[in-house]
Amino acid sequence: MATLNDIGVAAAINILTALAFFLAFAMLRIQPVNDRVYFPKWYIKGLRSSPLVNGSAFASKFVNLDLRSYTRFLNWMPAALQMPEPELIDHAGLDSAVYLRIYLLGLKIFGPIALTAFTVMIPVNWSNNTLEHSGLTYSDIDKLSISNIPIGSHKFWTHLVLAYGFTFWTCYVLKREYEIVAAMRLHFLASDQRRPDQFTVTSISITSFIRESSLLLINKVLVRNVPPDPDESVTELVQHFFLVNHPHHYLSHQVWSLTSTLKIIPSSITFSLLQLVYNANKLSELVNEKKKIQNWLDFYQNKYKRNPLKRPSLKTGFLGLWGNSVDAIDFYTSIVERLSRDICGEREKFSSNTKSIMPAAFVSFKTRWGAAVCAQTQQSRNPTTWLTEWAPEPRDVYWENLAIPFVFLTIRRLIAAIAFFFLTFFFMIPIAIVQSLANIESIEKALPFLKPIIEVKFIKSFIQGFLPGIALKIFLLFLPTILMMMSKFEGFISLSALERRSASRYYFFQFINVFLGSIITGTAFQQLNHFIHQSTSQIPKTIGVSIPMKATFFITYIMVDGWAGVAGEILRLKPLIIYHLKNSFLVKTEKDREEATDPGTIGFNTGEPQIQLYFLLGLVYAVVTPILLPFIIVFFALAYVVYRHQIINVYHQEYESAAAFWPDVHVRVVAALIVSQLLLMGLLSTKEASQSTPLLITLPVLTICFHRFCKGRYEPAFVRYPLQEAMMKDTLERAKEANLNLKGFLQNAYIHPVFKSADESDSESESESEWERSPALVATKRTSKRFTPMPSKDGGSVVSLDQVNDECLKP
Amino acid sequence: MATLNDIGVAAAINILTALAFFLAFAMLRIQPVNDRVYFPKWYIKGLRSSPLVNGSAFASKFVNLDLRSYTRFLNWMPAALQMPEPELIDHAGLDSAVYLRIYLLGLKIFGPIALTAFTVMIPVNWSNNTLEHSGLTYSDIDKLSISNIPIGSHKFWTHLVLAYGFTFWTCYVLKREYEIVAAMRLHFLASDQRRPDQFTVTSISITSFIRESSLLLINKVLVRNVPPDPDESVTELVQHFFLVNHPHHYLSHQVWSLTSTLKIIPSSITFSLLQLVYNANKLSELVNEKKKIQNWLDFYQNKYKRNPLKRPSLKTGFLGLWGNSVDAIDFYTSIVERLSRDICGEREKFSSNTKSIMPAAFVSFKTRWGAAVCAQTQQSRNPTTWLTEWAPEPRDVYWENLAIPFVFLTIRRLIAAIAFFFLTFFFMIPIAIVQSLANIESIEKALPFLKPIIEVKFIKSFIQGFLPGIALKIFLLFLPTILMMMSKFEGFISLSALERRSASRYYFFQFINVFLGSIITGTAFQQLNHFIHQSTSQIPKTIGVSIPMKATFFITYIMVDGWAGVAGEILRLKPLIIYHLKNSFLVKTEKDREEATDPGTIGFNTGEPQIQLYFLLGLVYAVVTPILLPFIIVFFALAYVVYRHQIINVYHQEYESAAAFWPDVHVRVVAALIVSQLLLMGLLSTKEASQSTPLLITLPVLTICFHRFCKGRYEPAFVRYPLQEAMMKDTLERAKEANLNLKGFLQNAYIHPVFKSADESDSESESESEWERSPALVATKRTSKRFTPMPSKDGGSVVSLDQVNDECLKP
Repeated sequence: MATLNDIGVAAAINILTALAFFLAFAMLRIQPVNDRVYFPKWYIKGLRSSPLVNGSAFASKFVNLDLRSYTRFLNWMPAALQMPEPELIDHAGLDSAVYLRIYLLGLKIFGPIALTAFTVMIPVNWSNNTLEHSGLTYSDIDKLSISNIPIGSHKFWTHLVLAYGFTFWTCYVLKREYEIVAAMRLHFLASDQRRPDQFTVTSISITSFIRESSLLLINKVLVRNVPPDPDESVTELVQHFFLVNHPHHYLSHQVWSLTSTLKIIPSSITFSLLQLVYNANKLSELVNEKKKIQNWLDFYQNKYKRNPLKRPSLKTGFLGLWGNSVDAIDFYTSIVERLSRDICGEREKFSSNTKSIMPAAFVSFKTRWGAAVCAQTQQSRNPTTWLTEWAPEPRDVYWENLAIPFVFLTIRRLIAAIAFFFLTFFFMIPIAIVQSLANIESIEKALPFLKPIIEVKFIKSFIQGFLPGIALKIFLLFLPTILMMMSKFEGFISLSALERRSASRYYFFQFINVFLGSIITGTAFQQLNHFIHQSTSQIPKTIGVSIPMKATFFITYIMVDGWAGVAGEILRLKPLIIYHLKNSFLVKTEKDREEATDPGTIGFNTGEPQIQLYFLLGLVYAVVTPILLPFIIVFFALAYVVYRHQIINVYHQEYESAAAFWPDVHVRVVAALIVSQLLLMGLLSTKEASQSTPLLITLPVLTICFHRFCKGRYEPAFVRYPLQEAMMKDTLERAKEANLNLKGFLQNAYIHPVFKSADESDSESESESEWERSPALVATKRTSKRFTPMPSKDGGSVVSLDQVNDECLKP
Repeated sequence: MATLNDIGVAAAINILTALAFFLAFAMLRIQPVNDRVYFPKWYIKGLRSSPLVNGSAFASKFVNLDLRSYTRFLNWMPAALQMPEPELIDHAGLDSAVYLRIYLLGLKIFGPIALTAFTVMIPVNWSNNTLEHSGLTYSDIDKLSISNIPIGSHKFWTHLVLAYGFTFWTCYVLKREYEIVAAMRLHFLASDQRRPDQFTVTSISITSFIRESSLLLINKVLVRNVPPDPDESVTELVQHFFLVNHPHHYLSHQVWSLTSTLKIIPSSITFSLLQLVYNANKLSELVNEKKKIQNWLDFYQNKYKRNPLKRPSLKTGFLGLWGNSVDAIDFYTSIVERLSRDICGEREKFSSNTKSIMPAAFVSFKTRWGAAVCAQTQQSRNPTTWLTEWAPEPRDVYWENLAIPFVFLTIRRLIAAIAFFFLTFFFMIPIAIVQSLANIESIEKALPFLKPIIEVKFIKSFIQGFLPGIALKIFLLFLPTILMMMSKFEGFISLSALERRSASRYYFFQFINVFLGSIITGTAFQQLNHFIHQSTSQIPKTIGVSIPMKATFFITYIMVDGWAGVAGEILRLKPLIIYHLKNSFLVKTEKDREEATDPGTIGFNTGEPQIQLYFLLGLVYAVVTPILLPFIIVFFALAYVVYRHQIINVYHQEYESAAAFWPDVHVRVVAALIVSQLLLMGLLSTKEASQSTPLLITLPVLTICFHRFCKGRYEPAFVRYPLQEAMMKDTLERAKEANLNLKGFLQNAYIHPVFKSADESDSESESESEWERSPALVATKRTSKRFTPMPSKDGGSVVSLDQVNDECLKP
């Protein structure tokens, strides 16, 4: 039982740790040699050039000698807060800006709650002496908590009223935030006037600019599960299907006087630009292989450059330990050449081989209206084929999953669900096995020659203390990766969806194993077993009763994981080390140096569940032990500043999903609210305050009702795109940019990443010309099929459209 | 404990009862005087004329004297089975035809299951003598059940394997049936070549024909929650909105050469026909009042006609007991006249007053494609306004609920859910109170003058035996009505949706109070209390163990409720009596006689839950006590024949939802399957056959997975309308009926029922001309608003469309 004093000491230690991290950060960041590690975002945007080039003295290139700059070691904090939100959205994208709002949400919710709790509840709790008279051991913290109220007291009404108050306040803030974020999203999607620099990578070329900045033109639809057809290739099939079933979007352009440029576009792209998705998994393997070998080649070339007298050599055998000695540069150069040839050959295949085409396509429409219609409707009689949805932005596409048939999706989801269940509740079993194997005795048995070393007392005790924990640590380290693999297995088609799913699973895992696991000691499986054999109404009681007792544990947890962890994040120790290692051995050119920096991303799949755990703790303890709240508020404030700094200066998001994750954030806070209400109910029912039970049951019912309302009112903004908006934008665009060359704008937006590698410019142009060649209007190969729509008066439906096209092209 | 003998006796009694009903039916139906009661469907379709008119001898008009016809008293059975399904669909609609398939589904599922169970499981169960040695009392039925297997025996593997087999068979049949019904639905929706007689009522007029037969033209969309606008009326607002946001459907007709007729339609209906929904609740009250008074007037006029010497008179005071005596016919004639005037006045108001317009409209599109798009997409930024969905067919619309705002819908659903919860679990409380009040003593106290009568021994015992039950009986009689009121309160906008919702609730009520209530004796609330205070894993055990013991009870239940109940249905005792009563007192003309017959409907909201209870019983007992299965099969077979007969000859469906209820049927059978699996798990776990538990847990998981697959694969056919289908139909229609006058076809489809009353032909034509007058293109009254879409090059968007219209109208 920790006293207030103990908590104070722990807080002091953690504050000092955090300060130490900040100090180290302040030192390191102003050294020019680390500039690329601490400001990669600006390099990526091309707004900062390397200090290594334009520094004056040699020493000042690496070490900052300006002493005055050391005195202002915390000045990054106000700087981070200065950038206004609209600029932040322009700078880092909406995802990042909205992610920061989660921290703000925490402050908005818990600020007023803490204030109320401290002015009302702490005096009420403190003014009893139940614990003093109980003869139990207790701490000062407990005197401030609900445990200090005598059983059956009328003072529980305070807690009940405050539970209502806190629920209403949380719901109010949540609703307002949902409203704001939904509006931000719609506004963001609508404003296509975005700066070119926002999404370009540093190797700026005109194609990549077009490619990247078109990503949010919302007139792209992804079509999946194109059914196989014996007569036609996928390309032809998709084109015919959309020509027949969405003809308006061609016809409309004539009437709407989208005249000039579109009319001179050859009729072959009348209805849409179609980008078929290639099954390029083998090719991408080759490209990766080549990249690795190229790294080695660079390494040896650098070595040779530094020491031109001795050409580096290596042995071709296992791990370079034996075999023939060959010249390293020649060896790797030949491999790189062979791989380049293979890659070319593989690419060649794509132009000729139709089997490499997946039954999926990105279809572009002339108007947002047409795309909105296509994405929101069911296309064919069989709802498992011709699945349409909004295309994720090009960087966001997860190419490997585009070709999974519907039946397998169901099966895959089932398998993933079962696997996750076992992972959550039985993950301790394999770890326990590893722990039992990895002890001193078994090591000595397996590797007897190590025995003398191990038997040294210091090493022995080190291993004994270290080994059992390491299996668990490794597992927890790999958990996000495992969850990500599960999500990939489930068949989501965009990185953002993958991260969102992983985040939900990670949150659930943390809820079971960290939150419940800490309250009811024992593994998740033991809990499960316990709960199955326990009455339903007993569960909240069991947990509720233990909650006040665990307050000190969670306070410590918040300080270590939250305070020190967040401060550690800003140091970027791992990227720092990796950058300097790469810089010493691999870097030849400025471009290499660029690639050596890993700016990293927010990491939604691990970061958000962590924040949610704090929401959960805050809401659960708000009524029970309000002393916990200030610690959470400090976490939210600190994290807000740190992550705002990181987002401005460091992180480079891989994709932009326009805050598609907000419904998840919302629903998890609501879930935390309901959990807190149920646990309070359990706790109060043991305090013989049973007259409050009906009032407490009402709370979760109201909260669920609130959630359903919010879902109906705001969620569609994250799933669908209203036709009114689409029409408005279309009209605006026609008025403003009648001459917009849509074709050039959309042409290369969706290309499998392996076709993009900049160094293969020749084959890229080849593949581009291949896009161009692909005819958008192919005469049907079918002879006569019942399924073909009846010919209209003008002849076959496809042909008639062709005729109309020709007519339209006349001036 | 019933022996096989007892069951035999009970079966004999019930079979005799059923036979008696059939015999009575056979007698009654061939009497000409009852012809309208037993063949109303044919009268409604105009294919049978009254035998009262064209009979020859006076006696033969009322009594059938042809003795030969009495000998063939069961010949309606083969006759009912003869009509092929496509003809049945034409005759009675898809709803009825698919409803019959539920009975067939039962036969298909339980036929093979019963066969397997009898050949495999009954010998296995019989070949033990656990019960003989147990010293417990047991019946022969129990010897055939799972109870006869010794604890821990390996024979449980038989049951396990069969549980798998039955599950797979059920799922297979369910999937096939879902597939067939989905195909039937799509085919039904697509085939607009339906006979004129199908949906007309007997008072055939050309307008009603057009009105009714257009109901399945699927290019109607219902728009609700039109937001209020200070500048424009609802009419103008809706028209502007759709002109701006769905312009294609106007433009399309020009390009698609839907030439001849549509071009000469004045430009005022260019984009769609719009039918605004009137808030006619007051008017409909007046109309009902008038109908009632008219009945009295008819009654007195008949009386006067029969006895022309004495003009009937009545007293105007309370209940006609005192007050001034007036001439009855004059009195009621004057009231009817006054009401007619009021109704006219009220209708007048609608043409002038815009406040009587609800913020909802039925919008028709030129093409199915346009309607499909509009119904499936989100229209405006705020997803709670401009809600679009497929319009239910005109007869199916529940007008009162069309104007409920979104927020209230959420609240109403919450309230209905809570009310239903209390209804299910606490319905015994008010009934118990009524029962305790309605005893002899309290009656004597309240009405002391009745004491001498009550104290007569016979009457006293009758009251004592009768009174406590009557409260429960009345409640159960009114339960469907109560559930229907709840559904209406919830705000569903079509009768079919109301019935579907009531059916789910009724099923849940039966599951809790009949199924669980019979197994675990005690009220639902006691069960709930029991379960809350019991471990989760204990619940299936508690129920599972009781199941074999209740087999005989359920066998009796099936015979009474199923066999005799179904046989009683065919007698139609209540409509028979009401018809003869009305016929004697109210009927004047042939038309009145028509209205006196109540053909009734299938009654999905009570009928389907009853069938589902049999599915549940069959699936639960298939493995446990297979002797129950033949009884269920007999029920399904009997009910199939009886309801097929009724559907062909009697029932007249109020609406046609094109089998929209099938997903509900499917999900309830799946739920029954899962319940049966859980209960088997509970039962086996008490039999120390715990090695089977993991295998049994797998079953519900697989079943849920099956359900999810079916939901994804087939449910969209019941919710959405694929664009490919729509486009195909549009193309076909254009090819076949280029001259189709869509306007005339759609004009009067959706009119509030009170405007339809045939006797008010003058005011109807008035209201029709009112439709015509309502201009489809209204110049906007807004001066300048930010929300208005940017003007296109040609000027304001609405205006520009107007211009295009004009251009199109040039030949």
